[in-house]
Amino acid sequence: MDINRLEQQLAFIVEIDKLKQIIRQSYITDGTRNETDAEHSWHMAVMAVLLAEHVDQAEIDVLKVIKMLLIHDVVEIDAGDTYCYDTQGKQTQYQRETEAADRLFGLLPADQEKEFRSLWEEFEATATPEAKFAAALDRLQPLLLQYHTAGKSWQEHQIVSAKVRERNRHIQQISQVLSQLVEEIITDSVAKGYLNE
Amino acid sequence: MDINRLEQQLAFIVEIDKLKQIIRQSYITDGTRNETDAEHSWHMAVMAVLLAEHVDQAEIDVLKVIKMLLIHDVVEIDAGDTYCYDTQGKQTQYQRETEAADRLFGLLPADQEKEFRSLWEEFEATATPEAKFAAALDRLQPLLLQYHTAGKSWQEHQIVSAKVRERNRHIQQISQVLSQLVEEIITDSVAKGYLNE
Repeated sequence: MDINRLEQQLAFIVEIDKLKQIIRQSYITDGTRNETDAEHSWHMAVMAVLLAEHVDQAEIDVLKVIKMLLIHDVVEIDAGDTYCYDTQGKQTQYQRETEAADRLFGLLPADQEKEFRSLWEEFEATATPEAKFAAALDRLQPLLLQYHTAGKSWQEHQIVSAKVRERNRHIQQISQVLSQLVEEIITDSVAKGYLNE
Repeated sequence: MDINRLEQQLAFIVEIDKLKQIIRQSYITDGTRNETDAEHSWHMAVMAVLLAEHVDQAEIDVLKVIKMLLIHDVVEIDAGDTYCYDTQGKQTQYQRETEAADRLFGLLPADQEKEFRSLWEEFEATATPEAKFAAALDRLQPLLLQYHTAGKSWQEHQIVSAKVRERNRHIQQISQVLSQLVEEIITDSVAKGYLNE
């Protein structure tokens, strides 16, 4: 057993505890506080297990999707959470997140660094079925939280329905069922006054 | 597509958001607050990916371990978190958690209820290599948090090293490397005054 290898793994495991300190814009369903990145990642990993059957393609690799979701936000430990409707923050996001990936995944043994880096890059590129499904869940999960908190975060940021529709559009590429669900939630949110037209 | 099936899946997904409200005894590494069950579950799922190579057995099913870890604490939404050193709470834990499993997993479509219920029961029985590895991570993860917060929660509950050793003993059954790591952390915690002899 290479003790140094275990030490590298532990260094990463302890470092990513900081994902519990990264606060998202979404509120948890009781509306009392914002959710953390760690909680968001957990929630989506469970969703991946349950909703994989709705992907309109050949079998997808669910383990790969879960791994992607578990680590897709780790870069935010250094780069911070860029709100999906923050156009200014989005301009520097790529550079900030690439440097974060170098440092954070660089804590791992070389083979595991390579695997995690590659999973993160695949997620970011949104080209494979696994990455498209992961991206769909990354849209659907906060949408469910918005819906169940009467659009609390939409209201705070004065987000309108066209922006939400735009952000969720590419779910069509991976799942008709989930895409239709998203459209129903948006329509109902507008009808209920959670989301402005 | 069976719409009722999707509705059942969503009901479960929204309900388990409450795992973000279940507060554990462990502090996150910056020591500012206790961790939530959702965060704990996420952290262990990442650990499973990285540390599976240290299991002293034939190949284990990592996807199964991850699924177990993602949902192993869901019953605490109804049953609450029973602190691992709370002997009184432990007496009623089984009954409370079984009823919780009935209600919570019962929200899902029958096949997925069966899968999750079975994963939870396998985790609880700690008999298969996957369940033993999951249980080892369920010991190691809070131990790492204790160590990196100078034993904050051990001090609050006046836990002594013999109790911690007892709780971690069965890690030997699944991984010599992780068992040795745990012993080193305990010994060093005592030496540093984080944990009382």
